[in-house]
Amino acid sequence: MGVRLSDNERLDWLRLIRSQNVGPRTFHALIHHYGQARDALAALPQLARRGGASAPGRICTRAEAEREMTAARAAAVAFVALGEPDYPLRLAMIDDAPPLIAVRGKLATLAQPTVAIVGARNASAAGIKFAERLARELGEAGLVIASGLARGIDAAAHRGSLTTGTVAAIAGGHNSIYPPEHAALAEAIAQNGVVLSEMPLDHEPRARDFPRRNRLISGLAAGVVVIEAAQRSGSLITARMALEQGREVFAVPGSPLDPRCEGTNNLLKQGAAPVTEAADVTAALRPIFERPQQLSAQEPDHPIAPGDPGEPGHEERDRIVALLGPTPVGIDDLIRLSGLPPAIVRTVLLELELAGRLERHGGGLVSLTAI
Amino acid sequence: MGVRLSDNERLDWLRLIRSQNVGPRTFHALIHHYGQARDALAALPQLARRGGASAPGRICTRAEAEREMTAARAAAVAFVALGEPDYPLRLAMIDDAPPLIAVRGKLATLAQPTVAIVGARNASAAGIKFAERLARELGEAGLVIASGLARGIDAAAHRGSLTTGTVAAIAGGHNSIYPPEHAALAEAIAQNGVVLSEMPLDHEPRARDFPRRNRLISGLAAGVVVIEAAQRSGSLITARMALEQGREVFAVPGSPLDPRCEGTNNLLKQGAAPVTEAADVTAALRPIFERPQQLSAQEPDHPIAPGDPGEPGHEERDRIVALLGPTPVGIDDLIRLSGLPPAIVRTVLLELELAGRLERHGGGLVSLTAI
Repeated sequence: MGVRLSDNERLDWLRLIRSQNVGPRTFHALIHHYGQARDALAALPQLARRGGASAPGRICTRAEAEREMTAARAAAVAFVALGEPDYPLRLAMIDDAPPLIAVRGKLATLAQPTVAIVGARNASAAGIKFAERLARELGEAGLVIASGLARGIDAAAHRGSLTTGTVAAIAGGHNSIYPPEHAALAEAIAQNGVVLSEMPLDHEPRARDFPRRNRLISGLAAGVVVIEAAQRSGSLITARMALEQGREVFAVPGSPLDPRCEGTNNLLKQGAAPVTEAADVTAALRPIFERPQQLSAQEPDHPIAPGDPGEPGHEERDRIVALLGPTPVGIDDLIRLSGLPPAIVRTVLLELELAGRLERHGGGLVSLTAI
Repeated sequence: MGVRLSDNERLDWLRLIRSQNVGPRTFHALIHHYGQARDALAALPQLARRGGASAPGRICTRAEAEREMTAARAAAVAFVALGEPDYPLRLAMIDDAPPLIAVRGKLATLAQPTVAIVGARNASAAGIKFAERLARELGEAGLVIASGLARGIDAAAHRGSLTTGTVAAIAGGHNSIYPPEHAALAEAIAQNGVVLSEMPLDHEPRARDFPRRNRLISGLAAGVVVIEAAQRSGSLITARMALEQGREVFAVPGSPLDPRCEGTNNLLKQGAAPVTEAADVTAALRPIFERPQQLSAQEPDHPIAPGDPGEPGHEERDRIVALLGPTPVGIDDLIRLSGLPPAIVRTVLLELELAGRLERHGGGLVSLTAI
């Protein structure tokens, strides 16, 4: 990973990812189509209009992006773009990798072999003790610990690895640490590790931001250890994302009589590797860390030449919309069933997305946004 | 399974299995060679002498066996022989199945689908509660619970299944219930289940009798659930025997901070199925119980015609002894390496065994007895 963006390019990237209806997947599709963030920004209004937006989505202005950059510098927060040397390699490999991460702390931490430890906020004393010990022992074994700065297990995992290296992926912006009582912990993490966010500096995290953030925790790591997790808990979302991202999933066994262990015990039933000591994790991950890392180039299924593929006609647009519904379908299927050139299908999808009418899921699946 | 022994045959079986140096494997080998227990009894002194015994092994007299039979009747204990209709089918399939089991209670219990629950004697309150609940729920699902009448988990498993059906396999004789404070529990089990022993009525269990007994617990069951087990505990011996017998092994997860869960968590690491509720067990065992049971006929690798295979010569006996040592070797290897007929090799092994010089292990392995 090598090329650094120019200041202007970085500003354009920030504008593009901060614009309405542009998520990481749309961002990647736009860059894929237009080559440059600047050209994508210029095309946004027209694309959204063609996608059927009643009002054009809000585009982040240059002035707004500059203000965010200045505020970030003041808060000692750096923006690292996907593809730049400091961007964590494993995170770059997930298909909804954030185009820009806002990071504070020792960036070298992001280049170390990393394992995530997550778990219940209302953890038991035993769970907290175990999390802290496991994090310390894995840290001593040379691993960086990623977690989510939450109460309970997350905080214990960070505390146990403060001196060896830890990364907190947070759901809000750097100026809106949640929970507030962990501000000092975040400060301590930044001293010898990294606090990482994909959100604007002042963004206050909402409920839906946490599952979104969880993909970063698993994305940063080669494996995720879950300690105490109830059924339907956020930690299980992280475990699911880890599986989707091809990461190892570990679970710490617990008493069947403790509801805080229901989720972890179910992970065991589903094949997660049991963990009772650090060696269980290091033994499983060593061969993975020894494998040479290579960046999957985010190659799309149907590579096309960058540049404007031309405007799809009404008839083509209607044909694709007719094939779409609330149930996610594969882009490949849309191409096949519509009989249209891939570039046209992708452009229509971009238009719909920018009009707020399309949702992208993992695995090349798309659906119409429920209204 | 169908043929009942005559009273005389049963007496001969009891004499043979109660004679010195005759364990279940020797018993089966002798019956295989001589067809009848009576003929085997007659051959014992000569076999032991040829095997190098300084003094002939003590043979159980007819009078002794009759006294044991009478005492058993007085204690409401019945002897069931391997191959008789009441003998549990699964137990008959293990290669060191006891030729005779002494049973007290409702014999029909032994014909029911059975699962074993075993675990720590010094179990936690949570472990005991869970064991009792699991046994009750598995009982309600139609399964008989086998266990070992020990303190802690075993007793809880029996208690939870008292009304639905439970089998206690004990290490001592029926008149020597261990631990003594479980005499009332044994009584209650016999009311609606079975207490089972392969030992003489007054046999006081020694330490080595417990591992030996454990093979009966797993042998009676299609699967073994281990609840709380420290490393190097008796419950893990039962689990290992279950694996050797081709039984399913289940383990209940527990906190890594509780030494009582170290053994069970390690079983999980080795691939045991995690159990947090009865459905985990019933779902895994249902297909096994639905499979038609067939008795593996204890067919030896090299079937030979019953009857005396002839006396091995000195030279042949020496050749086999020279191939033996304290390390278990396969009987097949002995046959191959000695170049002798299988019948001769087996006869020499019998002689050595009856002279107290040979030990039989699982999987057709034998070794010289350490002196």
